Amino acid sequence: MKISPSKVLLLAGVMLSAMSMSSARADDATARSQPMGANWVSPTGGYSNQRYSTLDQITAANAGKLQVAWTFSTGVLRGHEGSPLVIDNVMYLVTPFPNNVFALDLNNNGKILWKYEPKQDPNVIPVMCCDTVNRGVAYSDGKIFLHQADTTLVALDAKTGKVDWSVKTDDPAKGATGTSAPMVIGDKVYVGVSGGEFGVRGWVAAYSTTDGKQVWRAYSMGPDSDILVDPQKTTDLGKPVGKDSSLASWQGDQWKIGGGDTWGWMSYDPKLNLMYYGSGNPSTWNPTQRPGDNKYSMTIWARDPDTGMAKWVYQMTPHDQWDYDGVNEMILSDQDIDGATVPTLVHFDRNGFGYTLNRDTGALLVAQKYDPVVNWATKINMDKSSKDYGRPEVVAQYAPGSKGTDVNYTNICPAALGTKDEQPAAYSPDTKLFYVPTNHVCMDYEPFRVSYTAGQPYVGATLSMYPPKGQTNMGNFIAWDATKGKIVWSIPEQFSVWSGALATKGGVVFYGTLEGYLKAVDAKTGKELYSFKTPSGIIGNVMTYEHDGKQYVAVLSGVGGWAGIGLAAGLTDPHAGLGAVGGYAALSQYTNLGGQLTVFALPQS
Amino acid sequence: MKISPSKVLLLAGVMLSAMSMSSARADDATARSQPMGANWVSPTGGYSNQRYSTLDQITAANAGKLQVAWTFSTGVLRGHEGSPLVIDNVMYLVTPFPNNVFALDLNNNGKILWKYEPKQDPNVIPVMCCDTVNRGVAYSDGKIFLHQADTTLVALDAKTGKVDWSVKTDDPAKGATGTSAPMVIGDKVYVGVSGGEFGVRGWVAAYSTTDGKQVWRAYSMGPDSDILVDPQKTTDLGKPVGKDSSLASWQGDQWKIGGGDTWGWMSYDPKLNLMYYGSGNPSTWNPTQRPGDNKYSMTIWARDPDTGMAKWVYQMTPHDQWDYDGVNEMILSDQDIDGATVPTLVHFDRNGFGYTLNRDTGALLVAQKYDPVVNWATKINMDKSSKDYGRPEVVAQYAPGSKGTDVNYTNICPAALGTKDEQPAAYSPDTKLFYVPTNHVCMDYEPFRVSYTAGQPYVGATLSMYPPKGQTNMGNFIAWDATKGKIVWSIPEQFSVWSGALATKGGVVFYGTLEGYLKAVDAKTGKELYSFKTPSGIIGNVMTYEHDGKQYVAVLSGVGGWAGIGLAAGLTDPHAGLGAVGGYAALSQYTNLGGQLTVFALPQS
Repeated sequence: MKISPSKVLLLAGVMLSAMSMSSARADDATARSQPMGANWVSPTGGYSNQRYSTLDQITAANAGKLQVAWTFSTGVLRGHEGSPLVIDNVMYLVTPFPNNVFALDLNNNGKILWKYEPKQDPNVIPVMCCDTVNRGVAYSDGKIFLHQADTTLVALDAKTGKVDWSVKTDDPAKGATGTSAPMVIGDKVYVGVSGGEFGVRGWVAAYSTTDGKQVWRAYSMGPDSDILVDPQKTTDLGKPVGKDSSLASWQGDQWKIGGGDTWGWMSYDPKLNLMYYGSGNPSTWNPTQRPGDNKYSMTIWARDPDTGMAKWVYQMTPHDQWDYDGVNEMILSDQDIDGATVPTLVHFDRNGFGYTLNRDTGALLVAQKYDPVVNWATKINMDKSSKDYGRPEVVAQYAPGSKGTDVNYTNICPAALGTKDEQPAAYSPDTKLFYVPTNHVCMDYEPFRVSYTAGQPYVGATLSMYPPKGQTNMGNFIAWDATKGKIVWSIPEQFSVWSGALATKGGVVFYGTLEGYLKAVDAKTGKELYSFKTPSGIIGNVMTYEHDGKQYVAVLSGVGGWAGIGLAAGLTDPHAGLGAVGGYAALSQYTNLGGQLTVFALPQS
Repeated sequence: MKISPSKVLLLAGVMLSAMSMSSARADDATARSQPMGANWVSPTGGYSNQRYSTLDQITAANAGKLQVAWTFSTGVLRGHEGSPLVIDNVMYLVTPFPNNVFALDLNNNGKILWKYEPKQDPNVIPVMCCDTVNRGVAYSDGKIFLHQADTTLVALDAKTGKVDWSVKTDDPAKGATGTSAPMVIGDKVYVGVSGGEFGVRGWVAAYSTTDGKQVWRAYSMGPDSDILVDPQKTTDLGKPVGKDSSLASWQGDQWKIGGGDTWGWMSYDPKLNLMYYGSGNPSTWNPTQRPGDNKYSMTIWARDPDTGMAKWVYQMTPHDQWDYDGVNEMILSDQDIDGATVPTLVHFDRNGFGYTLNRDTGALLVAQKYDPVVNWATKINMDKSSKDYGRPEVVAQYAPGSKGTDVNYTNICPAALGTKDEQPAAYSPDTKLFYVPTNHVCMDYEPFRVSYTAGQPYVGATLSMYPPKGQTNMGNFIAWDATKGKIVWSIPEQFSVWSGALATKGGVVFYGTLEGYLKAVDAKTGKELYSFKTPSGIIGNVMTYEHDGKQYVAVLSGVGGWAGIGLAAGLTDPHAGLGAVGGYAALSQYTNLGGQLTVFALPQS
């Protein structure tokens, strides 16, 4: 299972998703609108993507006594991103390709209630840029929704695992794949697509939860009618975007294979009835081949989930030269900024900047580096009177393509996989801090000319990755104040922290490491409270649930993803995996392929 | 990865091994001659195969507080038989095919010191009857010895994992495979072969540990010069075997494809300088095609490890009609029998009888059923004056072939996989009890005519397996008094107990279950003290070691083997896996493919 030959390497991926509020809001939707409690009803820990739980049995005082309560092997190796759901004492989880889904009976020692084992063409594997991952299923009203690798969106009966309906959303023969978790709002299920390394034009689409019929589809680039923007009403930093604003930012019809894929986490504000997601890198990676801002790659989107129409957009990295996908999650909370309580959207971008926006208006409030080594841009222009307002101030030395192709641009920070990739951050309304798993990695990047062939890699760059000069840690787990754009504390880790974080009312924050440690730290201070070595490297997201009155914490192990692609796919060329294979070579001394769930609890008292 | 089509099913396997004492006895040999302590130096828990440890920190009083200390994913799925070794703070373990070997540094959180990843032709997989298992590596004098699936015997440098030498022992193209653990005595390493379902003629061979040169090879059947018996000096229940005793028990040259494979555990008595092992089923399974006693299939062997010459033999199941392989381990201890202390060999055979012999003379002392449902024979004839002395008194109704082929013989107990298969028992010199993981399974068996083609299944039987009538448990974990041939206590288990047992000086006995539970029970009473659900079904053997002054207990999870072949190989025809697929179908509700090490310890006090 090779990902790609030495030069034309893939990785990084791109995918996001969209969503819509609807007239029919079920109780499920209410549950998703609140912090998680006994159940963990959505892969993002609720519509807000806060990944915060009100469970508080596990505290900073007792977390040191945690034990492994039970375990489960998924029966599949390679990268396990995402997390299980727990709904009314049943746990649902999905494996990497072939995307088997399990329902486990928590009332009966995890007995397997049903298995769904799709038959997928393994030819989809070579077009999965960043391992054979799947980031989770969604649940609503008795149905489990899964976006398979082969872009089949399927609705399963949550009681039996039987297929209710299925629909094909895109074409793997062109490099399109499904890796991200769907989101459900009312009677619609929303999903995006991966394929930024194959020139797949990204989209988010809404399907009827009843029968799988498509309700709307919004592309990331193209004519206004394709991307569902209103030239007058859709705004960009407060101003109307104008007619065919995307087309104007591309040369010719390059937008048709322009990327901007949509493979990240989606969030939703029921009050504003707006859904949020980000779009990924423009295709090809080689920036010299696609002049222009390449709108709306690298963009935060706010859409009406009923119609798909965009309310506002904000392109973080115009004319991306680094593969700084904008797909990372949007975390919704209220923050006190300059004395006022603002409905904010906080986003830790691959490009190394932590953004705070007003999620109603799309106004940019804060944009600061969340890793001091970030050097490709000095800052984000915050001068509202400037024509470059909101744009990064790029440093040419660290901007591949600025001196042409076939030039090796060195010591660029962060590396292409960003200061953070898909691994989601968490937010605690108690501490008002964001807990962010980060990569602390720089790169050399040499663009080269590539031509487009459907279904073939369309990257055009050779990369090397390594820790920042003079440093050995390739990751940090940080606490972030989004009102000021400041790091509050930071825990160095030997490798990138490629696991999603969990914040709890108990004052304990959890994350996993690529070597396989599940760690619990004090939410206020970052002090380590507990550490346990799970069977394999953790790239899954920590979640918590309650069963029989007791709090449990669960995480998937299974090294892989972009950082672990060398191990996962058995690659050895250091440039393979877009430089990750060489960058993370030492990981093979610490862990091994796996696919296991580990569940923790306090001992019987 | 199919095992075989519906009718010509394989499974059961056959393999054993031999061994030799030698002039150069290293300290390693001394360690293997004693009960295990801080180290676990051989896969059988020492030459005696007692699987007993002198570690006593974990006791009946505190075992209930055990916790998972750390875990490790092997990176390979399917059946994980065997156990790790621990030698001087380094853990060595081997995976199922492709037989990767890992050295883990216990002083450094299990960091991977080295990996050995052999390149084996996957065409060996279809000729592995009973899953892609490997039962462990052996260690001696700085070398790790591995018998690979493709019958390559390899010596690795224990410090670096580099290949010191390798030698081919047999031919997988004819169905010969390596699955069992080697044994080392002095300067020789002993190994046997699997392939009873392919007509492979079994052998045990001694190789020089220095350079891999073969020292001797003893077949299970054939002329005296092939099988290394002396017509006058080698005895069978006290009498000389006579000239070409094996040839005389076969029709024509059927012995050349006659099975008697040697894939079980080996043991060794340094004082007597005798090594012990059992030979497996005669080929083909269909008994009507091979008249005669089929010597020396189904036989306990005592050999001089220096020369290979047999001192004595005892054929337990002449003319096997059930696939009751005789390969199970020989456990060496001293027992008080009729007022005298006897150097005994205790053996729990697949045929459902627990045998106690004088291991010096080969005299038969006790032979009793260790599961009351055994019905194929009423008893073993213990009348020394009878011509049938030592033979089972067979019940024709339950003897396939007695009424010809193409007849379905029903309700035979035990099933072909025996009252116990390779899963090794343990013995505690403290309680004087043997702890035996058992199968509690019966079968229907229909023999049919089959012709021999090299490398093709040579079975000729269709089987169904199920629990004994009116019962639901398919296994028991029992304590056995080998002086009387009596069950002392018995713990019913839903599925066969296919994990090896561990006895400890702490008075705690450990075993695993097919659903994946690691259980600790009181050695005296069988009372359950602790239970933990590991990621996958356990068919590995529990072991214990000490690190930094603390006792640890470890076991491999990874469902498979014969009982779990349906899950392991993805088979669904109930007759596949020689009836195991249907017999153990319910297992898929409880567990899933895996490959993980789970290590347990008491909490910090």
